[in-house]
Amino acid sequence: MAVVVGYVPTAEGRAALEQAAQECRLRNTRLIVLRSRRAGLAAADEATEDAELAAVRNRLEREGLQHEVRKLVPGLEPAEDLIAVAEEVSADMIVIGLRRRSPVGKLILGSNAQRILLDAPCPVLAVKAGGKS
Amino acid sequence: MAVVVGYVPTAEGRAALEQAAQECRLRNTRLIVLRSRRAGLAAADEATEDAELAAVRNRLEREGLQHEVRKLVPGLEPAEDLIAVAEEVSADMIVIGLRRRSPVGKLILGSNAQRILLDAPCPVLAVKAGGKS
Repeated sequence: MAVVVGYVPTAEGRAALEQAAQECRLRNTRLIVLRSRRAGLAAADEATEDAELAAVRNRLEREGLQHEVRKLVPGLEPAEDLIAVAEEVSADMIVIGLRRRSPVGKLILGSNAQRILLDAPCPVLAVKAGGKS
Repeated sequence: MAVVVGYVPTAEGRAALEQAAQECRLRNTRLIVLRSRRAGLAAADEATEDAELAAVRNRLEREGLQHEVRKLVPGLEPAEDLIAVAEEVSADMIVIGLRRRSPVGKLILGSNAQRILLDAPCPVLAVKAGGKS
């Protein structure tokens, strides 16, 4: 049993990570963070991501919550990889971040989000950045 | 603070209701069930829905969890109504049921689900019927 979250260093990625940690506290279960390995990522950006993840891991450690950071399998789509890991660990929940649309924004979810929502073996919690969500 | 769920008497509607009740137990918060008022609903179907909701309410009552069943406001889209209630009660979470797609099913979420996911003021938990999800 675990909560699985895909981490990207964006506002919604951070919101998803925070919410996932919160769900682990509630459920007293472990957190598995899937980190995307993006081609051509600048060293500075990778350092930022490392620092953010380290801060989250430190907090989880202090709280006594088990956690694990994995790199996405190269060649798999992020959605496929999240789903595969959720199946492997019999996840209680997958947490994903969604971009907030602008007031005139189109009503369309990204294909990765739709795939995860439709094909996940467990409930999927979708969070947006900012405020409560 | 509350968990808000839209109830329809389908497999995924029931799964959403079960999961929402579970989230209320974890969070020790109240459950608000929004019940769709469908035009032309047969009396027999309405009786089935009444019975299902009564069973859920009984269980929640025995567990000491606060709950409330509301009818959807006529004239509002289900998505708008769920979002309005979530805003009104400062919901912790909205729970929605998603239909499972067939192996050859199209990769497309319904417009109500997309609207809720994109416009909700809080995290949205999407569950499917059957198994863990």
